[in-house]
Amino acid sequence: MMSESNKEGAALNQVDQQLIPGQSARFKKQIEFILEVDKLKHVLRQTILMDRSRRENSAEHSWHVALLVFLLAEHSKETDIDLLHVMKMLVIHDLVEIDAGDTYCYDDKGRQDQHQREEIAADRIFGLLPADQAAEFRALWDEFEKRETAESRFANALDRVQPLLHNYFTDGQTWQENNINSRQVHARMRPVKAGAPDLWDYVNTLIDDAVGKGFLAG
Amino acid sequence: MMSESNKEGAALNQVDQQLIPGQSARFKKQIEFILEVDKLKHVLRQTILMDRSRRENSAEHSWHVALLVFLLAEHSKETDIDLLHVMKMLVIHDLVEIDAGDTYCYDDKGRQDQHQREEIAADRIFGLLPADQAAEFRALWDEFEKRETAESRFANALDRVQPLLHNYFTDGQTWQENNINSRQVHARMRPVKAGAPDLWDYVNTLIDDAVGKGFLAG
Repeated sequence: MMSESNKEGAALNQVDQQLIPGQSARFKKQIEFILEVDKLKHVLRQTILMDRSRRENSAEHSWHVALLVFLLAEHSKETDIDLLHVMKMLVIHDLVEIDAGDTYCYDDKGRQDQHQREEIAADRIFGLLPADQAAEFRALWDEFEKRETAESRFANALDRVQPLLHNYFTDGQTWQENNINSRQVHARMRPVKAGAPDLWDYVNTLIDDAVGKGFLAG
Repeated sequence: MMSESNKEGAALNQVDQQLIPGQSARFKKQIEFILEVDKLKHVLRQTILMDRSRRENSAEHSWHVALLVFLLAEHSKETDIDLLHVMKMLVIHDLVEIDAGDTYCYDDKGRQDQHQREEIAADRIFGLLPADQAAEFRALWDEFEKRETAESRFANALDRVQPLLHNYFTDGQTWQENNINSRQVHARMRPVKAGAPDLWDYVNTLIDDAVGKGFLAG
């Protein structure tokens, strides 16, 4: 009953401007963007779900970290921050993966051209939006990537902590499958220190415990 | 390699208070909540993805509507609203489905006891949080359900519009499978009028067009 082929391209073409209220070109672009970003639900990450049944996709991850923004706000290093801004960043931070794919954080080869691939993706995907919103979304993504503001440091901390919890509470299955060691995980987690020191303490304890229990190489 | 059994219960028990910084009971509850809400990724909705490949889950839906909050903010009936509050509501609005399941909006029988089932679920799930956050999350969910504030009316409008777009742009596949007619869809979409009149105009046009094209019964 369900087709295997990707019909999203076709669906995009179906946004009929005649049916848009006032035939607004702006509103049409917003609707097309809504249809386009649906593709994030198909981007699979290395992370597995807590019940180990399957890999997580980037839309699910983005939702989970958006929830962490207000659940864990008290753990932000700088507490007088704009949480709406943090949530916006996290909701859109992975959209570039629609074109660039999810690059595994320990894939050194893939990471060499990751930024270049994602810049091209950002140009196309955010370019679908009305100009002012294209600029707003692109600025949010750039800010997230640069980690120079308090909001982006907290956002990056949450983005690192969530998969760490998945890895730890599934006994390091993904770490083992990819021969990851504790030094690699420590290095990957460094932004947590800058954005959320309490969480950094917990992360370090979990890494040490994982090594002690033998499901993460020392 | 991946187990079919649900190991989430086991994972929850693995939150070892000895490993929590300062052995904080509060922080332990926050971590347990993060693990628990992962289950939302397993709750399947009737809505199918835009490429028709599979059903959408409630975590993906929650992410998609969170993005609509700032993409479509200009279409809110009342524009001077707290968008962070809207985002919080939408990020947590479906968590009760972890216990109560997704009730199809046109399932009249299932909807008879939906509220009762969801209240019980809310008690358990939000009850996992530290008391102040349990109260905050529960108040957000109650506000969303009651639709008495400008923020909750806009949130509900977005929650209705997103699946309408999925249905329309997949040629009404789910409508047809469930023998849904346009009067049922109109009734289901009424909250869009109260929260986002521009979107309500578009919804009506799409419903009429779907009937005209023969993929929604009149």
